[in-house]
Amino acid sequence: MTNIQDQGINPPQRFLLGPGPSNVDPRVLRALTNPPVGHLDPYLLKIYAEEQDLLRMLFKTENEWTFALSGTGTSGMEAAMANLIEPDDQVLIAINGYFGARLAEIASRLGAQVDRIECPLGDIFTVETIEAALEKKNYKIFALIHAETSTGAEQLNIKQISEVVHRYNALFVLDTVTSLAGIPVEVDEWVIDIAYSASQKSISAPSGLAPITVSPRAQNIIENRTSPVSSFYLDLKGYAGYWGQSHLYHHTASASQHYALFTALNIIAEEGLQARFNRHMENAQLLWEGLTNLGCAPFIPIQYRLPVLTTAQVPKSINPHTIRNELLSEFNIEIAAGFGDLKEKVWRIGLMGYSSSKENIALLLAALGQLLER
Amino acid sequence: MTNIQDQGINPPQRFLLGPGPSNVDPRVLRALTNPPVGHLDPYLLKIYAEEQDLLRMLFKTENEWTFALSGTGTSGMEAAMANLIEPDDQVLIAINGYFGARLAEIASRLGAQVDRIECPLGDIFTVETIEAALEKKNYKIFALIHAETSTGAEQLNIKQISEVVHRYNALFVLDTVTSLAGIPVEVDEWVIDIAYSASQKSISAPSGLAPITVSPRAQNIIENRTSPVSSFYLDLKGYAGYWGQSHLYHHTASASQHYALFTALNIIAEEGLQARFNRHMENAQLLWEGLTNLGCAPFIPIQYRLPVLTTAQVPKSINPHTIRNELLSEFNIEIAAGFGDLKEKVWRIGLMGYSSSKENIALLLAALGQLLER
Repeated sequence: MTNIQDQGINPPQRFLLGPGPSNVDPRVLRALTNPPVGHLDPYLLKIYAEEQDLLRMLFKTENEWTFALSGTGTSGMEAAMANLIEPDDQVLIAINGYFGARLAEIASRLGAQVDRIECPLGDIFTVETIEAALEKKNYKIFALIHAETSTGAEQLNIKQISEVVHRYNALFVLDTVTSLAGIPVEVDEWVIDIAYSASQKSISAPSGLAPITVSPRAQNIIENRTSPVSSFYLDLKGYAGYWGQSHLYHHTASASQHYALFTALNIIAEEGLQARFNRHMENAQLLWEGLTNLGCAPFIPIQYRLPVLTTAQVPKSINPHTIRNELLSEFNIEIAAGFGDLKEKVWRIGLMGYSSSKENIALLLAALGQLLER
Repeated sequence: MTNIQDQGINPPQRFLLGPGPSNVDPRVLRALTNPPVGHLDPYLLKIYAEEQDLLRMLFKTENEWTFALSGTGTSGMEAAMANLIEPDDQVLIAINGYFGARLAEIASRLGAQVDRIECPLGDIFTVETIEAALEKKNYKIFALIHAETSTGAEQLNIKQISEVVHRYNALFVLDTVTSLAGIPVEVDEWVIDIAYSASQKSISAPSGLAPITVSPRAQNIIENRTSPVSSFYLDLKGYAGYWGQSHLYHHTASASQHYALFTALNIIAEEGLQARFNRHMENAQLLWEGLTNLGCAPFIPIQYRLPVLTTAQVPKSINPHTIRNELLSEFNIEIAAGFGDLKEKVWRIGLMGYSSSKENIALLLAALGQLLER
């Protein structure tokens, strides 16, 4: 017995201007209306293969091991660490926000000896600071967040940092969860050993898939581990067998999720990466100008301010959470609170992928202006 | 620039009669057309809460810790093991097919001392065999597959096995990936400590979410571990914080996936669990009769034959893979090959959730009949 009146799913239509997920193009939703095929159906195998090419285009890499893991961005972070780390390995993590701290926690849970270098929330690291830390021990892995979603800071000088990391014979893991498809990421040019991302930020697909790419050097280390990867689910050799020519069963990937990711990646290819980066930057500048006019100037200095995620300073005497709740309940606009020490001081405003549009910015600034004047 | 002609996603319309995924109800696809909201949007929090109630109905449990993990069924398996196992714990796994072996591999990778009891493919365990194995050591965990998807055998006497397991003070982990929502699962009545499943089998949602439920006893053990869970991504305490009243950030769940799961769970509630079990059994009997008439009698004895997954014997002189490929290419019907030693001997035919219908069975039998006569 089906109901004539199917109440069903009927969510509010939100403007997603927080740290992710971003809004998805209607074409992505239309892709989701297609019935799933089997996870090893010849049709889906073609999609996996084309996704690999599109992800290589995004990461700017020729790495053979380039997949989308069946999990969120955090599964990508954990996969990078779990596949490289063997018990008691020395790992150095640079922390300038929440996600750097998460990287360190994940590495530590996996049995690594973790050292942390930290800088204040909103700052970025100098090449010299990182070199001074690398000098102290024989680290196997150095990991860093490219775009710290908790503060809105872009770590600069990745190529120079990479040169230092490799001079000290460490592997370089770069978190590109928020940066990929929003600002330039150059995996091969920067000599990154593992980079991972998430489907729901600048790529603008629903969450649930984690793009990841592995250099031949890191692949070789993973293939020659002395202990098995503690996680079967996130074992990259399992993925290589599943996505490779032999298509060995590893888990049951979701056709629906891949319909969505494939479509989102094609939309990116149509726009062109450079045009997409330009759009993100031009729109960010509009946002920054408008925020400054409202007395909510960006918190991060312009030199390393992320176009995809802006921390806007909350004016004195304003309760940031009240405003945030009103934006959601009155205007259907989602923005986020600050993290940690910044919780009462900033809002986090994302302009990622499909969400980065002039009309969204005009709406947000108008709504925020009204609410601040109350 | 968008294309006027959007080639996009246009998959073949398959009849999914393999071991999963199953077909989804069109209402599930319609749910997916809704734009994702943020992962902690008040609307989605209501969906999480209602899903918890619906999953408790499915698992027949009052367990507080009842969630849908953001990963496939394998992530549920790994979460069960990773949250209970501490290094060098003694674990006993019963293996009568591929998925029991996977459980043992996962437990072993997590640092447990794993003992295996095995029986031939297609057999099930007696309570006595399991008791004899439990006697030998002080096991912390005993794990078992309820419905072995690789053979089509249903492990009987779960309640009696559970009594023995708890008499020996072990925790009882039950894999219900293929059974949940297809045949009775009674988590509280059977005194199961952790049961987990997958969204794409008898539940008939797209894959990518893993329902899981944890007894208060297992919850207490997890909350009082001496070492942290090696996987941050699958840490059930993280899930409890994320799904609980405080809604602490843990990862970015997919609104789209939850729209689909929520809809599939509501469809199950409308049908009623007992009616659903009856439908699965009645349709399975139709299939078995038809297969027998075609000379492809079921491999598993009727006493413990799964209605949701049938292994059908391949007639002599027939190449099972040719027939399987023809079913797919000529009739858009997906069935699967056998596993391991059964690879050349059986086909695996799933009748799960939305795929379990009289018309699908009539079509499959007609198509198979035509191909066998060639």
